[in-house]
Amino acid sequence: MFMPVGTQATVKSLQPRELKEIGSQFILGNTYHLWIRPGDDLIAKAGGLHKFMDWDQAILTDSGGFQVFSLADSRSITEKGVTFKNNIDGSTMFLSPEVAMKIQNNLGADIIMQLDEAVPYFETYDYVKKSTERSARWAQRALEAHKCSKQQALFGIVQGAGFRKLRENSAKDLASLNLPGYAIGGLSVGESKTEMNRVLDFTTQWLPENKPRYLMGVGAPDSLFDSVIRGIDMFDCVLPTRIARKGSLMTRFGRVVITNHKYKDDFSQLDENLDDYASTHFTKAYLHHLFNTNELLAYNLASIHNLRYLLKLMEDMRAAIENDQLLDLKEKVLEEYGYNKANARLF
Amino acid sequence: MFMPVGTQATVKSLQPRELKEIGSQFILGNTYHLWIRPGDDLIAKAGGLHKFMDWDQAILTDSGGFQVFSLADSRSITEKGVTFKNNIDGSTMFLSPEVAMKIQNNLGADIIMQLDEAVPYFETYDYVKKSTERSARWAQRALEAHKCSKQQALFGIVQGAGFRKLRENSAKDLASLNLPGYAIGGLSVGESKTEMNRVLDFTTQWLPENKPRYLMGVGAPDSLFDSVIRGIDMFDCVLPTRIARKGSLMTRFGRVVITNHKYKDDFSQLDENLDDYASTHFTKAYLHHLFNTNELLAYNLASIHNLRYLLKLMEDMRAAIENDQLLDLKEKVLEEYGYNKANARLF
Repeated sequence: MFMPVGTQATVKSLQPRELKEIGSQFILGNTYHLWIRPGDDLIAKAGGLHKFMDWDQAILTDSGGFQVFSLADSRSITEKGVTFKNNIDGSTMFLSPEVAMKIQNNLGADIIMQLDEAVPYFETYDYVKKSTERSARWAQRALEAHKCSKQQALFGIVQGAGFRKLRENSAKDLASLNLPGYAIGGLSVGESKTEMNRVLDFTTQWLPENKPRYLMGVGAPDSLFDSVIRGIDMFDCVLPTRIARKGSLMTRFGRVVITNHKYKDDFSQLDENLDDYASTHFTKAYLHHLFNTNELLAYNLASIHNLRYLLKLMEDMRAAIENDQLLDLKEKVLEEYGYNKANARLF
Repeated sequence: MFMPVGTQATVKSLQPRELKEIGSQFILGNTYHLWIRPGDDLIAKAGGLHKFMDWDQAILTDSGGFQVFSLADSRSITEKGVTFKNNIDGSTMFLSPEVAMKIQNNLGADIIMQLDEAVPYFETYDYVKKSTERSARWAQRALEAHKCSKQQALFGIVQGAGFRKLRENSAKDLASLNLPGYAIGGLSVGESKTEMNRVLDFTTQWLPENKPRYLMGVGAPDSLFDSVIRGIDMFDCVLPTRIARKGSLMTRFGRVVITNHKYKDDFSQLDENLDDYASTHFTKAYLHHLFNTNELLAYNLASIHNLRYLLKLMEDMRAAIENDQLLDLKEKVLEEYGYNKANARLF
């Protein structure tokens, strides 16, 4: 399954009912952003994130760690946690495994994540080892601090960058906690696709087969196939909505940059293969016009379209798995998308 | 009836199906903007404006004149028409009664407007007289240039600023053309409400009772009542959607500036009186958060809300007219809205 990203208690430009309409059963919320604005206490007062944003399907919140390491300034990390200045008002904040649990308990998502350190992929073995072992200890502390384990499933996050031995140790440490699910972190952060597949190849074997496996931050069609084939069940990514707002549409026959002049008078559907509101009601020429005139409806329609493309792809994958045709589906989809063309425009 | 404004073939931030859901049966499109982008020829190729923007309800297009007089540079007006530089790419363009008809025939709206000169309210009697007489001649030329009078109803526009005699002459000139409807132009352009009511008082009597009367650019609740009472049937205004995007909500109990800090933890509905998606699914605190974090969904929800407020107000007025209770409704609505409070925040 694929989870659209709703960073600030909203999947950008979409109503909750529109998300349901395109088949989204799960969205992701960002703890870091919600902690700062409007604050987890306020969301708790509202009755939790589901109620605050009117989303009656499932939610997963991350731990806030990734944003602390990618957005915040003046970070310092110790065994206890991370001190940093936030990127909104510059005030100093402190995030620890316990704080991340307190915030996520307040937000009330269905799946919550342990705090881990988002280690850059090409750090030294010694640093990654130290960090990964600390993240495993943080998982233990998160479990102990978790106040409502019957309502919220706590996932651990396997780290270890590209080091087989560290990934193995991390997976085994977390598996020993018997958590309801496991994420694989520290991938899709700049390493090659071959490299990511190599890590997945040797990491998933150490994770329990009967627990969901979640690969964080992946949303390109070829990577989704590569990862599902290697045993991954869950994904999230800002890609479909972020490129949508720039005018890039994911279609069956590859990327369509709708702002391109050639679509000015193209009165064909956005994607004849798709059943969403945007694809069935509007032409490429109309969406070109909306982007050309900076109309807000452009972002909404393009986001609906791209998310439906990915959600439908996951539906097709699930059906193919049932029928043992996943490899056939992969070949067909990637061929049509243009992954095999020398000059294909992908993302 | 009230027509939401869809300047560039979209009512800003709203899907056509959302407009239908809130009871909009008619929208207005701006000829000036559509002529420049994407061009009326392109819209004709798309099958007309209804099809281009997927709107299967009615559309009225203006003549483009108002925007030429309010947005364009280097205007020069002669008997033949207006030459100007457009505000998008600065190129020189020429608009005449015949060109305005050609464009509007291409756009294919259900009601189309004659080209007139939008005269400033406080011009001299001599200038207004000259201009109003020319506008009446332009109405005649528009009628002669109209290519599809069975599909598109051409409305004339009464001008004459605040001069009783000029309004009378203008109305009589137009009435002699036996057009399917009449607009009153040159009001709501900076004159006082008392002044506008005075002009309506002496203008409507010269317009046929069996033809619709359209007051252009009016959307404040008190002015809508004042005008309906004086015999006006149709309105359009950017007010509800424009103030929505700034965070101003029109509610039963007056204007709510949702960006105000006091709404941060106000978990009440936007407006308990309204039945639209925004009012029934989201709290003031949530909308405050969306505006506070510059989320695109804010503009959509606030626009749905304000348009539904006005469309519902018109529904209530129609019912009140049927029951001969319009004055009672006016008193109740304006009292609740706060028009009688000394420090009321209106618009």
